[in-house]
Amino acid sequence: MSGRFLSLEGGEGAGKSTQAVRLARALEARGIEALVTREPGGSEGAEAIRALLMQGDVSRWSSHCEALLFAAARADHVEKCIRPALARGSWVICDRYIDSTRAYQGAQGIDDAAILALHGFGSKGLLPDRTFLLDVPAETGVGRAAARDGADADRFAARDSDFHRAVAAIFDSIADQEPERVRRIDASGDMESVTARLIAALDDLLP
Amino acid sequence: MSGRFLSLEGGEGAGKSTQAVRLARALEARGIEALVTREPGGSEGAEAIRALLMQGDVSRWSSHCEALLFAAARADHVEKCIRPALARGSWVICDRYIDSTRAYQGAQGIDDAAILALHGFGSKGLLPDRTFLLDVPAETGVGRAAARDGADADRFAARDSDFHRAVAAIFDSIADQEPERVRRIDASGDMESVTARLIAALDDLLP
Ligand SMILES: Nc1ncnc2c1ncn2[C@@H]1O[C@H](COP(=O)(O)OP(=O)(O)OP(=O)(O)O)[C@@H](O)[C@H]1O
Ligand SMILES: Nc1ncnc2c1ncn2[C@@H]1O[C@H](COP(=O)(O)OP(=O)(O)OP(=O)(O)O)[C@@H](O)[C@H]1O
Ligand SMILES: [Mg+2]
Ligand SMILES: [Mg+2]
Repeated sequence: MSGRFLSLEGGEGAGKSTQAVRLARALEARGIEALVTREPGGSEGAEAIRALLMQGDVSRWSSHCEALLFAAARADHVEKCIRPALARGSWVICDRYIDSTRAYQGAQGIDDAAILALHGFGSKGLLPDRTFLLDVPAETGVGRAAARDGADADRFAARDSDFHRAVAAIFDSIADQEPERVRRIDASGDMESVTARLIAALDDLLP
Repeated sequence: MSGRFLSLEGGEGAGKSTQAVRLARALEARGIEALVTREPGGSEGAEAIRALLMQGDVSRWSSHCEALLFAAARADHVEKCIRPALARGSWVICDRYIDSTRAYQGAQGIDDAAILALHGFGSKGLLPDRTFLLDVPAETGVGRAAARDGADADRFAARDSDFHRAVAAIFDSIADQEPERVRRIDASGDMESVTARLIAALDDLLP
């Protein structure tokens, strides 16, 4: 029996990485094996591509080149890590996935249909069974991330607030278009409450 | 006035790298500025992607992932190196380009239309003004490459002779389909004779 594929999406500091681990523990407490992974990266080859993507100047790569690199990293991650885990019955919790590419590369002007076509080519269009869009006021996310990182921001976090507003608008429109797959989760408040909301929004998929 | 874009294609050891440099000298002797570059690679970002592509085990990347990485490297190379050189009036001589991807990834089962779609996305489909397909008997090329490399073959050279036959067949079919752009050049015999054949096959493009 195949496992379920879940992804966590949302802006910087929303709590995706925190909740990925908490959600895995909550599933394991229910007797469900859960693998936490992340993008870009998650497999040996994809982590090597991630290093190219995250380092260097904001303008190191053109938006089109960047979209191809994300699609390549995802193809490797899906083939070497996600599909094998699902096939052996494990659930997979992915910290960012295709919707982050749609939001971040989309905010740089790349057409959504083109991004989905690359995903179709590289990863046979694999989509999560459920995607959680973690929703916090922009200031809350920025404040959480700043408290965590200090001056240590990466190429994407370095962009301005107009860019982050455009990203948030695309996440929102994906949630509107795909309400069955994508659930908006209020990610303000303490970590326990957020985890409880995730589990509640998984109700129909839990055994 | 924009420069001309030339590419050299063909199997291992056919003499592409040798003739790229010789052709540049022959053009310079005619007062034409000529830049020699190569793929995968040719720009800082593309060389970093090249390192990922050329190292490691034959099965390090899936064919689809590999096609995305080649498209990403080419997008960077075209944007940062080839287009700027052409725009300032230099000719560009590229040692392997899109037809190598069509031949090598095609021989691994990737659909030609999909490869061209990735090239359209990443590089706006930029094609050379003229492509030289260097033609030598397979044994000649293998012999030349073996004499050059010793035991130092890369991920692609390591494939078997069926694979190299499939690559040669795709190069041939591209030359059949695009006779105006792609010219078959007899690449046996000494280096001077081959260079003379290249110049002859450029006749209509020379000022
Ligand atoms: N509910 C919460 N309340 C308070 N702080 C939180 C909460 N959730 C996470 N944090 C803290 O906020 C910071 C950002 O959280 P986290 O790293 O999980 O966010 P993220 O969405 O993964 O961010 P990024 O997109 O930058 O990877 C961390 O220091 C984390 O400990
Ligand atoms: N016409 C020729 N006659 C004899 N030797 C040649 C000739 N052209 C090239 N060589 C030699 O053959 C070897 C292979 O040539 P070269 O490296 O130019 O091939 P290539 O097509 O670039 O190969 P690869 O695909 O492996 O990069 C080199 O050692 C080169 O000096
Ligand atoms: Mg995170
Ligand atoms: Mg060469």
